[in-house]
Amino acid sequence: MLSIELQISLVLFFSLAGYLLSSRINQSAVVGIIIIGIIIGPSLLSIVKYSDAIEMLAHLGAIMLLFAIGLEFRIRDIYQLKYALIALAGIVVPWGAGYFLGYLFGYPFNVSMIIGVSLTATSIAITAKVLEEMKKLTAPASRAIIGAAVIDDVLGLLAMSIAVQSAKGDIAFTEIFITVMKAAVFLTAGIFAAPHIKKLFVKLDEKRLAREFPHFLFMTAIMFCFLYASIAEVIGLSAIVGAFLSGAALEGVKFKNSKDLKEGAEYLHVIFGAIFFISLGILANLRDLTFGMSAFFAALIIVAVLTKVIGCGITAKMAGFSRSESLVIGFGMSPRGEVAMIVALIGLTSKIISQEIYVAIVLMSLITTILTPVFIRKLKW
Amino acid sequence: MLSIELQISLVLFFSLAGYLLSSRINQSAVVGIIIIGIIIGPSLLSIVKYSDAIEMLAHLGAIMLLFAIGLEFRIRDIYQLKYALIALAGIVVPWGAGYFLGYLFGYPFNVSMIIGVSLTATSIAITAKVLEEMKKLTAPASRAIIGAAVIDDVLGLLAMSIAVQSAKGDIAFTEIFITVMKAAVFLTAGIFAAPHIKKLFVKLDEKRLAREFPHFLFMTAIMFCFLYASIAEVIGLSAIVGAFLSGAALEGVKFKNSKDLKEGAEYLHVIFGAIFFISLGILANLRDLTFGMSAFFAALIIVAVLTKVIGCGITAKMAGFSRSESLVIGFGMSPRGEVAMIVALIGLTSKIISQEIYVAIVLMSLITTILTPVFIRKLKW
Repeated sequence: MLSIELQISLVLFFSLAGYLLSSRINQSAVVGIIIIGIIIGPSLLSIVKYSDAIEMLAHLGAIMLLFAIGLEFRIRDIYQLKYALIALAGIVVPWGAGYFLGYLFGYPFNVSMIIGVSLTATSIAITAKVLEEMKKLTAPASRAIIGAAVIDDVLGLLAMSIAVQSAKGDIAFTEIFITVMKAAVFLTAGIFAAPHIKKLFVKLDEKRLAREFPHFLFMTAIMFCFLYASIAEVIGLSAIVGAFLSGAALEGVKFKNSKDLKEGAEYLHVIFGAIFFISLGILANLRDLTFGMSAFFAALIIVAVLTKVIGCGITAKMAGFSRSESLVIGFGMSPRGEVAMIVALIGLTSKIISQEIYVAIVLMSLITTILTPVFIRKLKW
Repeated sequence: MLSIELQISLVLFFSLAGYLLSSRINQSAVVGIIIIGIIIGPSLLSIVKYSDAIEMLAHLGAIMLLFAIGLEFRIRDIYQLKYALIALAGIVVPWGAGYFLGYLFGYPFNVSMIIGVSLTATSIAITAKVLEEMKKLTAPASRAIIGAAVIDDVLGLLAMSIAVQSAKGDIAFTEIFITVMKAAVFLTAGIFAAPHIKKLFVKLDEKRLAREFPHFLFMTAIMFCFLYASIAEVIGLSAIVGAFLSGAALEGVKFKNSKDLKEGAEYLHVIFGAIFFISLGILANLRDLTFGMSAFFAALIIVAVLTKVIGCGITAKMAGFSRSESLVIGFGMSPRGEVAMIVALIGLTSKIISQEIYVAIVLMSLITTILTPVFIRKLKW
């Protein structure tokens, strides 16, 4: 067992190699880092083991990443009707198509439900990172993707709890209703609290404390981030939804005495985000994919990309976006990232799906994640 | 069991309370945070448990802290003869006095040896943090403290391995010799590598890669930091010695395209350093100190402070420092911090010392740590 220091050093070393690779193949840093992750993981070289410590740091990395991304987004933008419509299409179309795919390949009702649900989520982390690197985070299409992806994440996790509860044979409508209500209360409270939190930060910045300890407000912000993340987890959402919300609540805050939040969040997420992305690569063991699964696997990937491109893209076009913007939105909604992996993991541990379907979903999630930056960068918009 | 997100949020919340307390009592942030740590720990309120996850993050915090401190120090300054003399006095006087104290209280040879060794180490982390807050990090007395403390840390850890090996009944001189040689090679190699590493960083800064990814060199630096830390651990030194050395190797590097290392290291160590300092407070359970131990405990603290003040102070005076500077150096060398705690822990797990001596050493370490900033701030220099 390597010491934690050496593990971190190795992961950062290979992340740097990922940067180099990205620069050479002219791709987003995320793609390079994930590919390096696959190479050093059990799929090929088995150099780095995915230890509990690295898993925890990767989890913290995802939280810091979403916090940093949240800092770039105005909270009002997320709750526009057109984003809600795009998000809804991005849930219904993949869910239905995924279920139908499972049905075609002869899987039972519960398994097909999990396959469908795993296709609903959208991982904002990867697309947002690519958009950030392209310096297009504030473009209308980018805002639509992030806004709709946040809604999708929330709705996708709700869909998962419904699917798991139904698989257990007891669809407790009251429980589902309570989860939905808690989520609604949390998100609404977060939106209404945002301007007050911003005011509080600006007020604190003028106190002696901020002059004495210029990092005081940065630490307060990170404390908020982890508080929101833990609240999100408690009420059954993904922790990163909370982290994103806390970041969005502090968007645009400027200080006179205190250190800049965005700058600090960037330093944190560069280090821990790299650990997160390399973990995604290490986790995907290509050797687990059996030959017998190849037809299902190929179909799953095609369905995964097409349902988001068609579902979200057409809705975006109808909502007034241009043809190329709609395509960007469709492809931008395609990466399933860690959210689908979590759905697959819960399906596996609840004994609803088998090991091979689990691997197929994880790899589908990874491949859509790798393909997305390629498509988004290739499109002219 | 609380989620890791909530644990981090709580620890940061209480660290912020520590900042507030420090500001009120006009003390260093470190003192406030450690006192809050004692209050929320098992000594009083038992609000926060010291989990494995927090322990790991605190360890990473100590590493990042020493890296940031290293970035402020010129490597040549550490290896001056007068610092070596101060350091040597800071090892020999406390070791001898500590051994004699154990002998007076009737403890056997091996136990007295561990008591002596636990007094040799000096924790740079606390003093350096206080000096940083006082904006006196570059004063000659400060440089002497840091330089001597680094040497003390190295020598103290060597003394520990000798004491533990002798307690086991087999003083293998070859093994001790090999450890000393490995340490010497590592430190010497670190010093000679430093200018080349600096040149490499400046060269990389001019490449396209640095313009494309401005955080590339920051990540490289953190990778170096953890690499050095793990090498230090492998050869039997404390990981933080390696982290300090890596920081010192990059002192004064300025970039045109890349993000600033010092600034980034500060953001990291503010968050993780707080976790480290609050852990020191939580770990010290005041309830474990029995009444029967009070005479020994009181004597231990007096010996701990006096031996460093007299040993290092007189040596500093002879080396040409002023009277007040010599006092600052003496008190500045007093905090035993996490190094003495590690010595105590190894003594306990090697079954050389009892639980109550373990608690006495840990608390001695903590109290010298809390007293030091008070003395340094009170002195006029």
